[in-house]
Amino acid sequence: MQTVPDELVALAHRLAEAAGAVQRRYFRTPVAVDSKSDDSPVTIADREAEAAMRELIARHFPDHGVLGEEHGSDRLDAEFVWVLDPIDGTKAFITGRPQFGTLIALCHGGRPVLGVIDQTITGERWVGRAGAPSTMNGAAIATRPCSDPARAVLCATSPYMFAEGDERAAFERLARQVRMPLFGGDCYAYGLLAMGFVDLVVEAGLGVYDYMALVPVIEGAGGRITDWEGRPPGFGSDGRVVAAGDGRTHEAVLRLLGEKTAS
Amino acid sequence: MQTVPDELVALAHRLAEAAGAVQRRYFRTPVAVDSKSDDSPVTIADREAEAAMRELIARHFPDHGVLGEEHGSDRLDAEFVWVLDPIDGTKAFITGRPQFGTLIALCHGGRPVLGVIDQTITGERWVGRAGAPSTMNGAAIATRPCSDPARAVLCATSPYMFAEGDERAAFERLARQVRMPLFGGDCYAYGLLAMGFVDLVVEAGLGVYDYMALVPVIEGAGGRITDWEGRPPGFGSDGRVVAAGDGRTHEAVLRLLGEKTAS
Repeated sequence: MQTVPDELVALAHRLAEAAGAVQRRYFRTPVAVDSKSDDSPVTIADREAEAAMRELIARHFPDHGVLGEEHGSDRLDAEFVWVLDPIDGTKAFITGRPQFGTLIALCHGGRPVLGVIDQTITGERWVGRAGAPSTMNGAAIATRPCSDPARAVLCATSPYMFAEGDERAAFERLARQVRMPLFGGDCYAYGLLAMGFVDLVVEAGLGVYDYMALVPVIEGAGGRITDWEGRPPGFGSDGRVVAAGDGRTHEAVLRLLGEKTAS
Repeated sequence: MQTVPDELVALAHRLAEAAGAVQRRYFRTPVAVDSKSDDSPVTIADREAEAAMRELIARHFPDHGVLGEEHGSDRLDAEFVWVLDPIDGTKAFITGRPQFGTLIALCHGGRPVLGVIDQTITGERWVGRAGAPSTMNGAAIATRPCSDPARAVLCATSPYMFAEGDERAAFERLARQVRMPLFGGDCYAYGLLAMGFVDLVVEAGLGVYDYMALVPVIEGAGGRITDWEGRPPGFGSDGRVVAAGDGRTHEAVLRLLGEKTAS
């Protein structure tokens, strides 16, 4: 596929609007918080936002597949598969922080060709589309140069997202070498990277719905995003992500993460 | 002093507006970032926002004292002393995140009697005034009950704000015991605590301009804020802060932080 058809891009915008309407209705209201099997929190807002998006997809493209964080998978063998995270940053959402987002990816043959990061409270929407420059609220965006990790602003949602042991040690080794490590933000950090405000996001423990939408946004802004071994993030990835605005920093970080701690 | 005169509250609002105007002018524009002696970043926006506030104070109350993060101290022996942080969260500001704030405290006899947390990008302003309920955008706010740390949502801007050794170990011991540790946010976390969305903020390495404005906001919402030894935060404090929405959690956290790590 050379370009993503306009009607699919238009649907992605409608999905973001539908999810945002649900989020705004529940934000900072007393919603019950349930724990999922992985101990992560979920609310009625997550479930309703995803249901609203699935309903729109089913109405307009009933043959498309869907994988969502809250309501499972349908037709994953379809040519087009939507990957949905109705609230990325549920912990932010339930603690009244505006920096949660809706993540929408459209995959074609297993590769993400369209990605949306939508922040409904701050009114910011990033769109990445294979073969076109990424945008934020319609304006083209680009990552910034960063020749090496020592000059980088590094983001991660939490130091506790890395498994204790080698994984956390690798992150902490990196955090000591960068110019500035910053925490918090979930998908917002990737949006800032695509706009050239930060240089590096390194995370772990993500689900496929957490990273698939990020790929077209970051690549279309001139950045790179892979797993910790340098492979493209896909359906079978292990949930460890390195995103960098500059390929030189990306390469150097892959090397750093791969080094073993002296023991 | 029984109540804070209305004209001083009105001036505090004008200070927040003046600082916010400067911040909005520079936010997400390419500003030079300098390093201060403590290695923390500072920009022209920090300096201009503080200058705008000092100019207003000097014009309306020339006998008042002022202590600001960027431009030093004047008349600290005055009856009224303003304590100003023109951008709390400069790291957020320079990386395009909207969650930085202006912190404005008015001290009377060394104790903060008026506090403002202003978030100009999200359009949120918290006001605390001795003897009155705290407000956010004019509506009364209150902390929520939390009987013990195991049920608490805990916030801190970064795990790296704690000095390596005993201090960081104490924080990490606490973080393992709470329901949910969250990072990022600077002063925003204290505003969320005052609104009952989070239960606990534990930080270290703060300057007097970082915490003085928080005190009236949190106390006027029913919460408690002290240093790690349980003393009221003041001009001579060591920059370690424990804020809790519920006094039971506050007491338990002081005990936990005071325990020595088994060695």
